[in-house]
Amino acid sequence: MARRYVIGLDYGTESARGVLLDVESGEQIASHAFPYRHGVMTAMPDGRALPPLWALQDAADYVEAAEAVLSALGRGREIEGIGLGFTASSPLPATSEGQALSQCHPDQPHAYVKLWKHGAAQAEAEAINAQGGAFLDNFGGKVSGEWLLAKAAQMAAEVPELWQETGRFIEAGDWLVWQLTGQETRSLGFAAYKAQYSAEAGYPTHLVPGLASRLAPPLRIGSPGGGLTQAWRDCTGIAGKAVVAVAVIDSHVVLPAVGGVSDGCLVGALGTSAVYLVLGKDFRPLPPGIEGVAFDGSVRDLWCYEAGQAGFGDTLAWFVRSFPRSQNPAENFRLYNEEAAKLAPGANHLLALDWWNGNRVPLADSGLSGLLLGLKTSTTAAGIYRALLESLCFGARSIYDLFIAGGFAIERIILSSGLALNNPLLVQIMADVFEREVEVPVIDNPTAVGAAIHGAVAAGVVADYPEGSARFGARSFRRYRPNGDAAFAYRTLYRNYRTLCDSQPVRNAMHDLNRIMPS
Amino acid sequence: MARRYVIGLDYGTESARGVLLDVESGEQIASHAFPYRHGVMTAMPDGRALPPLWALQDAADYVEAAEAVLSALGRGREIEGIGLGFTASSPLPATSEGQALSQCHPDQPHAYVKLWKHGAAQAEAEAINAQGGAFLDNFGGKVSGEWLLAKAAQMAAEVPELWQETGRFIEAGDWLVWQLTGQETRSLGFAAYKAQYSAEAGYPTHLVPGLASRLAPPLRIGSPGGGLTQAWRDCTGIAGKAVVAVAVIDSHVVLPAVGGVSDGCLVGALGTSAVYLVLGKDFRPLPPGIEGVAFDGSVRDLWCYEAGQAGFGDTLAWFVRSFPRSQNPAENFRLYNEEAAKLAPGANHLLALDWWNGNRVPLADSGLSGLLLGLKTSTTAAGIYRALLESLCFGARSIYDLFIAGGFAIERIILSSGLALNNPLLVQIMADVFEREVEVPVIDNPTAVGAAIHGAVAAGVVADYPEGSARFGARSFRRYRPNGDAAFAYRTLYRNYRTLCDSQPVRNAMHDLNRIMPS
Repeated sequence: MARRYVIGLDYGTESARGVLLDVESGEQIASHAFPYRHGVMTAMPDGRALPPLWALQDAADYVEAAEAVLSALGRGREIEGIGLGFTASSPLPATSEGQALSQCHPDQPHAYVKLWKHGAAQAEAEAINAQGGAFLDNFGGKVSGEWLLAKAAQMAAEVPELWQETGRFIEAGDWLVWQLTGQETRSLGFAAYKAQYSAEAGYPTHLVPGLASRLAPPLRIGSPGGGLTQAWRDCTGIAGKAVVAVAVIDSHVVLPAVGGVSDGCLVGALGTSAVYLVLGKDFRPLPPGIEGVAFDGSVRDLWCYEAGQAGFGDTLAWFVRSFPRSQNPAENFRLYNEEAAKLAPGANHLLALDWWNGNRVPLADSGLSGLLLGLKTSTTAAGIYRALLESLCFGARSIYDLFIAGGFAIERIILSSGLALNNPLLVQIMADVFEREVEVPVIDNPTAVGAAIHGAVAAGVVADYPEGSARFGARSFRRYRPNGDAAFAYRTLYRNYRTLCDSQPVRNAMHDLNRIMPS
Repeated sequence: MARRYVIGLDYGTESARGVLLDVESGEQIASHAFPYRHGVMTAMPDGRALPPLWALQDAADYVEAAEAVLSALGRGREIEGIGLGFTASSPLPATSEGQALSQCHPDQPHAYVKLWKHGAAQAEAEAINAQGGAFLDNFGGKVSGEWLLAKAAQMAAEVPELWQETGRFIEAGDWLVWQLTGQETRSLGFAAYKAQYSAEAGYPTHLVPGLASRLAPPLRIGSPGGGLTQAWRDCTGIAGKAVVAVAVIDSHVVLPAVGGVSDGCLVGALGTSAVYLVLGKDFRPLPPGIEGVAFDGSVRDLWCYEAGQAGFGDTLAWFVRSFPRSQNPAENFRLYNEEAAKLAPGANHLLALDWWNGNRVPLADSGLSGLLLGLKTSTTAAGIYRALLESLCFGARSIYDLFIAGGFAIERIILSSGLALNNPLLVQIMADVFEREVEVPVIDNPTAVGAAIHGAVAAGVVADYPEGSARFGARSFRRYRPNGDAAFAYRTLYRNYRTLCDSQPVRNAMHDLNRIMPS
């Protein structure tokens, strides 16, 4: 029998990356990346500037990337399943047949994909939140301006004729599955987290005129969206069943690749910002400040609670960029980490609030900013760098504490990402601050591997996610155990961190500074 | 008639500097500096380490410097008067004839001068403060561990035999006048500010056994201490009356050189730390937080109120040293000032508390530390530098506000020092934050010139301090007027500065961090 494979695709903000996994051995055979031709569009193809906060993409770029990556990985091979992780919410208007409206209206900004970080629909989100409703119960009472509902409302309000012409308003990940399979399916992950769909109440379509006909009922995660069309087989050279799974939110798709497939897992993805997902078998009310929860939208048969820090790696990058020791950024990080690692916990006598990009959980306040306290003429740059590392860990710990206070039993703490793999000092501080063992999965391209596992589930290659995770996911984990000697310092620092987070004079000052408009 | 001169001597922490002024024209003819052979002693001459916080000097170094500077400036000249500014409180034990005990006991640390920053007598200061008494009324209810009373108590407690042998416990400035004139006199400036002497109650000698016989009644500022002895005339070649004035605290002696000779003057000396002196004709109760007040101890016939910031120039030096742009410190300052000057007030969206060395006024709490608030990934290093400049101005403003709240009428704000002359951005921010005109005297060696004016008063060369100031002091002042466009930003920032200063969670966090003893 011929060797069989699954493919996972990770559609990120700037490029798509794919991996090819061997079905029998579970091993990663190859990977391939392809950048989007137009990247993130902050101007129109003809050079016209877009208004502030706009961020678009061209859906044709996704198709081009799919062709390149699937051909590179799949040509001449028996592909059992294909899974996709995709940025979200990144919706586009399409015809009822699935054609992107940007193809018919290339000069019309609203015809393009509104990328997840398109921030121009905030007013619509606020109007929706003011109206309220039970559909917000699992989302802390509010939608974000980055989510589908707000973006649909912006389009309906600003370009009613184009909205009229819109047959489907669809997440780009769902749209790409439609292109690959020739049939429209929607992902429960996108629908629940980004369009507030629930099995009981459906979508809150009353919020936007005409929205009902432009959406479609979603399938739970791991469902087959259909088989790859003949046209795609022809152009990519892929053979085999090639079942395409429904798409998955990119920040969730990693879960089965890093062991996050069971009740009580907390999985943190430490990137530019940080996302924390907690998996639970039984529903518990959303702890105050936690951002959202849905069932069957991330890993099957589990509730997945979502929280995050607005700034993470970018805060560290800001520091080494602002106060360089070397021209080379990587060397800068190495030097600062080396010096910071020599300091005992608390020896910097500094405390920071990690709000360089505002606070997401629990305050949902982008007007907050970072704070450094304890500065002396004996303070060193490496001491400040270490205080930033520590503050990021305190921010993570305060999210963990919200879950614990909400009655959750956290069985494992898994921290994934390149930052977690490359910065052992950071992860050791995490373990010390949590006073718990922290695991770091050792795996290349975890997001794309996670997508491949979704494809394997949809194709029936594995019976379920735990089997998929065991076969294709990380084979080893680096374990960081808390150092008891650090406990006094970090308990003292963390207690003060929490007090300062709650301090109204501190928050008021941050807001007041934002109000100053220099002449 | 031969040309006549006065000499001023400025005895600082590391060296003595002198100036020669022409009595008729008032002009500065020459200056000369001489470093102390042993500098600040943190070890004994034989290499033995001193305990933490100890800082000694060798009185013989002062004599050597006097010989060098007086010879260089005075040889063959008619010198009418000599004045001295001296660090304080820097007391030493001497015999009843004025011999420094370190000459008889060179191996005994307690036999040397305890320099102003000798910090090992804090426990004695606390014991004195716990006992309390009316002598503390003009000093906010407490003495500092750096003052004479605490240093005498430390000596009496730790080396009772040596204390027994001590005929006089005397400020080094007074001791040097004794050496120069052959007769013991004491300065009311030292006695009042550093030994809590008052005309009504004398010294609080009950605090230290045997202290009464080791002190002597002081003379008010500008009094002649005596004429230069023949031995000194012989070795320096000085001719003329050469009346030596009683010594003056170095931070006060500058006043007549920079126009600080009248009711309602606020004179700030912006150095490593900052000292603010307010002159008043009538007594007003010490505003809460202000450090001390005495009459006739700084400028004659005026009350002089004293306040300060524990950190000033050293906070800026810390920043450019920790985050250098260039190998050259002066170039670093230039680059940061240049970039910071391009930012409009409030454009950095940052706020700092200037407590890098703790807070002196009004909290008298060295356990406090610096704070930076408003940090974002868009924050720049120059923005932070500017926030430090601004925070130093807010600290100065909050001292000014204490005087205003205490009913003082401040007529002029004069900022002196090299920093004030060399950093126009800093002074402009001062004017903007005070919303008042600020004057910067243009004068070389102002401290030594101030000392010379005291010598001129003592010698009768001028009738009083205003005349001395007009003849010998600064001839021009740079005037900085507030920029109305800055008012909104600085009012907003300063309001929040005050609120954060008062925030108990902020102060508690600072204290808590100090308690962490890294393992």
